[in-house]
Amino acid sequence: MAHDIRIVTEAELRAALSLDLTMVEVIERAFAALAEGGVVMPPILSMELPQVHGEVDVKTAYLPGFDGFAIKVSPGFFDNPKLGLPSLNGLMILLSAQTGLVEAVFLDNGYLTDLRTAAAGAVAARHLAPERVETAGVIGTGVQARLQMQAAHLVRPFTRLLVHGRDPARAEACAADLSRLLGVPAEVRAEAASLLADSQLVVTTTPARSPVVMADWLHPGLHITAMGSDQPGKNEIEPRALIAADLYVCDRVSQCELSGELEAAVLQGLWTRGTPPELGQIVAGQHPGRQRVEEVTIADLTGTGAQDTAIASHVRRLLGQTGTLIRA
Amino acid sequence: MAHDIRIVTEAELRAALSLDLTMVEVIERAFAALAEGGVVMPPILSMELPQVHGEVDVKTAYLPGFDGFAIKVSPGFFDNPKLGLPSLNGLMILLSAQTGLVEAVFLDNGYLTDLRTAAAGAVAARHLAPERVETAGVIGTGVQARLQMQAAHLVRPFTRLLVHGRDPARAEACAADLSRLLGVPAEVRAEAASLLADSQLVVTTTPARSPVVMADWLHPGLHITAMGSDQPGKNEIEPRALIAADLYVCDRVSQCELSGELEAAVLQGLWTRGTPPELGQIVAGQHPGRQRVEEVTIADLTGTGAQDTAIASHVRRLLGQTGTLIRA
Repeated sequence: MAHDIRIVTEAELRAALSLDLTMVEVIERAFAALAEGGVVMPPILSMELPQVHGEVDVKTAYLPGFDGFAIKVSPGFFDNPKLGLPSLNGLMILLSAQTGLVEAVFLDNGYLTDLRTAAAGAVAARHLAPERVETAGVIGTGVQARLQMQAAHLVRPFTRLLVHGRDPARAEACAADLSRLLGVPAEVRAEAASLLADSQLVVTTTPARSPVVMADWLHPGLHITAMGSDQPGKNEIEPRALIAADLYVCDRVSQCELSGELEAAVLQGLWTRGTPPELGQIVAGQHPGRQRVEEVTIADLTGTGAQDTAIASHVRRLLGQTGTLIRA
Repeated sequence: MAHDIRIVTEAELRAALSLDLTMVEVIERAFAALAEGGVVMPPILSMELPQVHGEVDVKTAYLPGFDGFAIKVSPGFFDNPKLGLPSLNGLMILLSAQTGLVEAVFLDNGYLTDLRTAAAGAVAARHLAPERVETAGVIGTGVQARLQMQAAHLVRPFTRLLVHGRDPARAEACAADLSRLLGVPAEVRAEAASLLADSQLVVTTTPARSPVVMADWLHPGLHITAMGSDQPGKNEIEPRALIAADLYVCDRVSQCELSGELEAAVLQGLWTRGTPPELGQIVAGQHPGRQRVEEVTIADLTGTGAQDTAIASHVRRLLGQTGTLIRA
């Protein structure tokens, strides 16, 4: 029996959707669902294509209480820039949680992933950063550096912003963009240590394979969200810092131990605290978040299919008649 | 950078594409590629959703020599018939093997899967069935019963057809349809043993969880293709028959031992012949197929991502301007 499928392009999605507190709350609800049981989130289907310097990940998750579930296809082809094409692309499919019928195809080229990743940073900041954040810092100068600071500002309206990146020109551009977007002064720091020293909230957004934040730089009242590691071998935070912190939190333990900051700490035999708590357990009140202003907290975000399902469902509600209907 | 994505519906695909020898040869080439190395075919992403009596499988494969690769999403929601909807649905995405860009979305509701599954049956028959098949038999009376016999007739133009199914009325309807489609007499057999006894080529197309073909029914000059098992616990052929046959062939050993006929034979400790050959090795000339007319051969087909990539690439070439172009 034919039914209508809504096809929505990146441009249409950008016009319909932006990063706001409602979106943060939708993603927060996805994390709570992860902790509350009944979620079905299979391991990521990951296909390495060394022949073409590419990779493809497929993520999905079924969350009780959501009408639909998303299946996300994320290709990364790293020779594309030589052809004038972006490395990252992909789409998200929304299926009915009742019938499995395809309801929508979001040809988003990764835009929805960008948003749900930033929103998870805001969820982490809301539950783990000190109540008062005057200065926020970001390490990295790409799309996520910008979006993570916008998301953090929704829940911790800081009044100063610091940027550190390997390329000073890109760091200056990122600081200028964020200063304009958020209406706060933003400055570039040539040394990551200096950025850490002056910030209460730091987000790392790099593809680093050796740490960009050292354990010795931790100080009372600091929260760090590390969102760059999403593959085995990536590592942004010196493993010793995970033990030095008062609280280290995973988005999903099973993913962080394979491809997050936890991976290196476990490999080096440093992690001795058993199973770390998950962000969803903190959201759901099953585990305390930050308890005192002077604590040091670290959130390790690898990205979950639960976030994809949550944002795809959220978008579907917002879209109204946007997109092209195809009867299939 | 925006690019065009072709969206094609099931109705458009049905108009553009049919089961023919060219398609069989495309699928045959996919099997050869599986044997020749360089293929990347990750394990199936399989999500069980007992809460809603559903399941979703995602399959993919990269094949050297193919311009694109497919990612296929196959939901099965088994309460759908109560709502007047089919249980099986889904779509196939074709991505460029060079850039990872999405090139086409085939909203096929499983039609391409039906075709590539039937074409694999023809590949098995071509390499394993006796040269001369006068009578072909099919066990099962659904879509695959019809398509498997149409596919087999392309490579072994039999002159008589036998049908067996649990429901006599459905068996009669299937026989009538096939007789008309193929222009050969078709009769229903109430006993599967009688169908086996009189056939040189038999295809089983059932979701059986206990055998519908017994080892004692094997006879010289018989080929059986079992294509119904695709989940752990399914079993169409009595495990002892796999040992009794002269040649037992998997589409993919790693899948057949988890969810094909091999599963039960291994679980019962009956399989003692080491790693069985794969159909691709026979197609590629790396392992002999049928060597003598009196041999008994069995092919175990669970369905591979390689077939999806092959048929999606084939369809893309045939489509011309069919479908809706979306700039995304």
